[in-house]
Amino acid sequence: MSERTRLRRLPDKGSHDRAVINEILDEALICHFGFVRDGYPVVLPTIHARVGEILYIHGSKAAGNLRTLKEGIEVCLTVTIVDGIVAARSLFEHSMHYRSAVLFGKGRLVDGPEERITAFRAITERIIPGRWDDARRPSEAEDRQTTIIAIKIDEASAKVSDGWPDDPDEDLDLGVWAGVIPIAVSYGQPIPDPRLDSAIGLPDYISKLVEPTD
Amino acid sequence: MSERTRLRRLPDKGSHDRAVINEILDEALICHFGFVRDGYPVVLPTIHARVGEILYIHGSKAAGNLRTLKEGIEVCLTVTIVDGIVAARSLFEHSMHYRSAVLFGKGRLVDGPEERITAFRAITERIIPGRWDDARRPSEAEDRQTTIIAIKIDEASAKVSDGWPDDPDEDLDLGVWAGVIPIAVSYGQPIPDPRLDSAIGLPDYISKLVEPTD
Repeated sequence: MSERTRLRRLPDKGSHDRAVINEILDEALICHFGFVRDGYPVVLPTIHARVGEILYIHGSKAAGNLRTLKEGIEVCLTVTIVDGIVAARSLFEHSMHYRSAVLFGKGRLVDGPEERITAFRAITERIIPGRWDDARRPSEAEDRQTTIIAIKIDEASAKVSDGWPDDPDEDLDLGVWAGVIPIAVSYGQPIPDPRLDSAIGLPDYISKLVEPTD
Repeated sequence: MSERTRLRRLPDKGSHDRAVINEILDEALICHFGFVRDGYPVVLPTIHARVGEILYIHGSKAAGNLRTLKEGIEVCLTVTIVDGIVAARSLFEHSMHYRSAVLFGKGRLVDGPEERITAFRAITERIIPGRWDDARRPSEAEDRQTTIIAIKIDEASAKVSDGWPDDPDEDLDLGVWAGVIPIAVSYGQPIPDPRLDSAIGLPDYISKLVEPTD
């Protein structure tokens, strides 16, 4: 554990447990990755996928941002899942239920054909499990247009915030409602492409993805 | 517009329209802000609230991260709202519907009592509209424990990605389902604090917040 991942605040909520970190990485749909460009911080959103100790992100070769990363510069990659709002009796004790993971590492260009397939597949299956075996896989020309970056999960930490409002006893008689308002990401009913042949039904793996989980 | 906010990719999706940027900032529940610490990029999540041209973030005075920002260092603040998954016939054309805004600026410590109230209020009302007039406001001691940072929205850009799968014509006969899977943030039924007096009902402004909008 380095100075960068030392948990600076509320250490009771922090964790260096790799299982906790992996679960957060695997559930979050997107990450925000930061790097230094011309001395300034830059933070951008993207999709990520984890394979073991490696996190993959990808993008168009024409985009300048991944070009920067593949030079091996330092990157900070953060994912955050918001689970709820904690409404306390005092504004001061208001907070959020969230789970976040912060990773530090250096980007590495993925150019081996086998590892590229591994990364493509992981990114696809991360977003729509089952899609890899159904949709058309990348052609050679499409493959050439895509930059894939690997970041080894060397230094990482997680924060998990949950629990009830932490109001001091003297606030309990204020007559103010207090509790937790749950927040979740939900999927709507899939909308077919206007160009879709109406004989093609929704695949089971997408029906399953969008089913309400609660 | 500087080099930093020049839209590097897919300029048809990019915008410097302040109304578009403000709408994204005002809808997103959290942001990810990045800064450079000891030469390394650091990206952290937090709640933000906009008041005109100013974006406010806050945190505990004991936390080291906002202490860094108040020295006036450069920060990049990014918000991203995921609206859906675009399932194309080829994996290459898969993408997301999203709206993101990226801001660059310098942090400024907010210490004037009036501006601090403005910021506290904006952050509260951003998350639970109506809460400011109901919950107990910060005491002097609580106020002293909170660091508030203002970032002027000087340089900002937005990206909005929507639309149907962009499959080339030759892929239309592949027999693969294609379309858009909508994604939204949804609120669950509020759960009262176990210490709450059962005579205190859920306030209307929270009922309204959690009502499904579709």
